[in-house]
Amino acid sequence: MTIERIKPAQWNSRAVVHGDMVYLSGTVADDKSLPIEGQTRQVLDKIDSVLAEAGTDKSKILAVTVYMADIDQKDEMNEVYMAWMDKSILATRTCIGVDLTLGTLVEITVTATKAG
Amino acid sequence: MTIERIKPAQWNSRAVVHGDMVYLSGTVADDKSLPIEGQTRQVLDKIDSVLAEAGTDKSKILAVTVYMADIDQKDEMNEVYMAWMDKSILATRTCIGVDLTLGTLVEITVTATKAG
Amino acid sequence: MTIERIKPAQWNSRAVVHGDMVYLSGTVADDKSLPIEGQTRQVLDKIDSVLAEAGTDKSKILAVTVYMADIDQKDEMNEVYMAWMDKSILATRTCIGVDLTLGTLVEITVTATKAG
Repeated sequence: MTIERIKPAQWNSRAVVHGDMVYLSGTVADDKSLPIEGQTRQVLDKIDSVLAEAGTDKSKILAVTVYMADIDQKDEMNEVYMAWMDKSILATRTCIGVDLTLGTLVEITVTATKAG
Repeated sequence: MTIERIKPAQWNSRAVVHGDMVYLSGTVADDKSLPIEGQTRQVLDKIDSVLAEAGTDKSKILAVTVYMADIDQKDEMNEVYMAWMDKSILATRTCIGVDLTLGTLVEITVTATKAG
Repeated sequence: MTIERIKPAQWNSRAVVHGDMVYLSGTVADDKSLPIEGQTRQVLDKIDSVLAEAGTDKSKILAVTVYMADIDQKDEMNEVYMAWMDKSILATRTCIGVDLTLGTLVEITVTATKAG
């Protein structure tokens, strides 16, 4: 079973594929000037794109961790998240407030499968 | 290999079963008035119940992440945790202090297997 | 498929091996008097040693989570991390700032495989 690394960057690969499992790095928005809603949307768009490159999609996500700079923005994040994450394919999720790099309001890490 | 989603709720499923792997969402206590010991016990009871529904139990937990609102309450959490987690079945664990939603003192995320 | 627990300690095993998957506990430096660079080096040395005991090595790491007491020390941590993590074997990674136990500046959790 080989390890495939997708888009290796400075410190990490955007995703690593091992067998039918797909691990994504913490994903952040490129435009730090956006409010939480816009950053969440950018993060989820990037996740869709990396999942596609890995040969899967959001319906096969197993586990999500949402890291927020301000846990009080959870409602706003949830609204964008649920517009993306269909009710019929709800992954497991953990959402916590942490310190992120300057300007980043939300960072999301995803584990998915290709066989589901 | 199918993806089975257990107890889909508002934003996540309580657990997702994929092959012999079982992923749980971050689990919190229902009664936020309880001190750290009581909340930890409630969380672990809920985890036992979700693991059972997924066809496994705590002896087959592979990895645990404990998120605490106050890392200085780690000793109190540990006492309850170790009364639950037998010494012969010690999972891996990471324990960190983060911001949780109002009133939540501890949130625990678990990855387990059904084949162990 | 059996569950092998490596170096069970007070609250967790250093690693749990299940099939070809290897899960490590959050790993911290033993010498809390060291600055971020030295603590990071100690953590990575310990990870190398646990991976070896589990029958694998850093080239087969799939996912890394770096927890930092001060996210502003990310550059210093990255320098040590990248001297260790070869560019050709870049794992996925998430790096966040959290509260750690007193004196701990960095804690790292790793998921690896033996078949890669």
